[in-house]
Amino acid sequence: MTTRRTPGRPASGDTADRRSAILDVARAHFAAKGFRGASMRAIAREAGVDVSLISHYFGDKSRLLVATMELPVDPVDKIRSVIADGPDGMAERLLRTFIESWDPHHEVFSALVRTALGSDDAHAPMLEVARNVLVASLLEVLVGEERELRASLIASQLIGMATLRYVVRLEPLASADPADVVRQYAPPMQLLIG
Amino acid sequence: MTTRRTPGRPASGDTADRRSAILDVARAHFAAKGFRGASMRAIAREAGVDVSLISHYFGDKSRLLVATMELPVDPVDKIRSVIADGPDGMAERLLRTFIESWDPHHEVFSALVRTALGSDDAHAPMLEVARNVLVASLLEVLVGEERELRASLIASQLIGMATLRYVVRLEPLASADPADVVRQYAPPMQLLIG
Repeated sequence: MTTRRTPGRPASGDTADRRSAILDVARAHFAAKGFRGASMRAIAREAGVDVSLISHYFGDKSRLLVATMELPVDPVDKIRSVIADGPDGMAERLLRTFIESWDPHHEVFSALVRTALGSDDAHAPMLEVARNVLVASLLEVLVGEERELRASLIASQLIGMATLRYVVRLEPLASADPADVVRQYAPPMQLLIG
Repeated sequence: MTTRRTPGRPASGDTADRRSAILDVARAHFAAKGFRGASMRAIAREAGVDVSLISHYFGDKSRLLVATMELPVDPVDKIRSVIADGPDGMAERLLRTFIESWDPHHEVFSALVRTALGSDDAHAPMLEVARNVLVASLLEVLVGEERELRASLIASQLIGMATLRYVVRLEPLASADPADVVRQYAPPMQLLIG
């Protein structure tokens, strides 16, 4: 593995330093250019490392984005496991996994939403994850007509529920038992999954 | 109609002045105490008018709250007309009315959401309308089990869709034809209405 040096940003040092340097550069690129505009090669160049080192540490661009957010829940892993079993019963798995993952971290979720929606930043990391992890993953599973519109409406249902449960804390949703939310909300979501 | 005078806040003057004085006081009370904590009597007292004058100008407390927001769309009127015809086909009427009302004012909606969610203010006017106009009106129509949870999940669907369409501007939802959104999204919402 070769590394290219950039003045003032040594690529040498231990793994933790290099990971941290890559994440700093990646965070700045995602903020400035958005997910689509950001390039793994450009990030590697500025961090003074080979692009294969970024893939080795973090995986693909979605995972790099998620790594920059230092989330308590890995949305890529979670959604991969949900979609792996196909569309049958997916709404129930998606809702149960989402609620079980985020209930213990509702304050983090709330801060992410407040940051993303409180600013005018179309490339807020939370929004990029919604677009490029959630919606993109749903599209791998959905078939039939208007699948892109349906994927964005499934995201609407999920993000709306999470916003009222965690951010607005609308009762009785905010305190409802996860099983009750899943039982009521999975059928309407499954209708859009097909 | 009697009016009580408060020093420095004359209740006399023309109607526009009095309406405006009432709205200023009401806005401050809703901001400080929230919808439930705010009292029509206390607002009347501080504005130096009789409470019956507030009812005469604005109607009930929900309408007074809405009046303080100076919205381009009156959500009380809109939702009254939607629920007047009962639960059959209500999701379609609710979505069509909502989208037709807010599409031309999407920037106002976006500013309301950003203000409500960007701050830590549990009594943001937009949230009070969601609770005390939208959810309260849905509850007048819903019957059957867990109707309060279902009402908050219908609000989740509506607010999630509007946030992704107007604030996040997620495509293809942001540019989708209203008829396509209604056709795809009304059945899942109707499932929660019953």
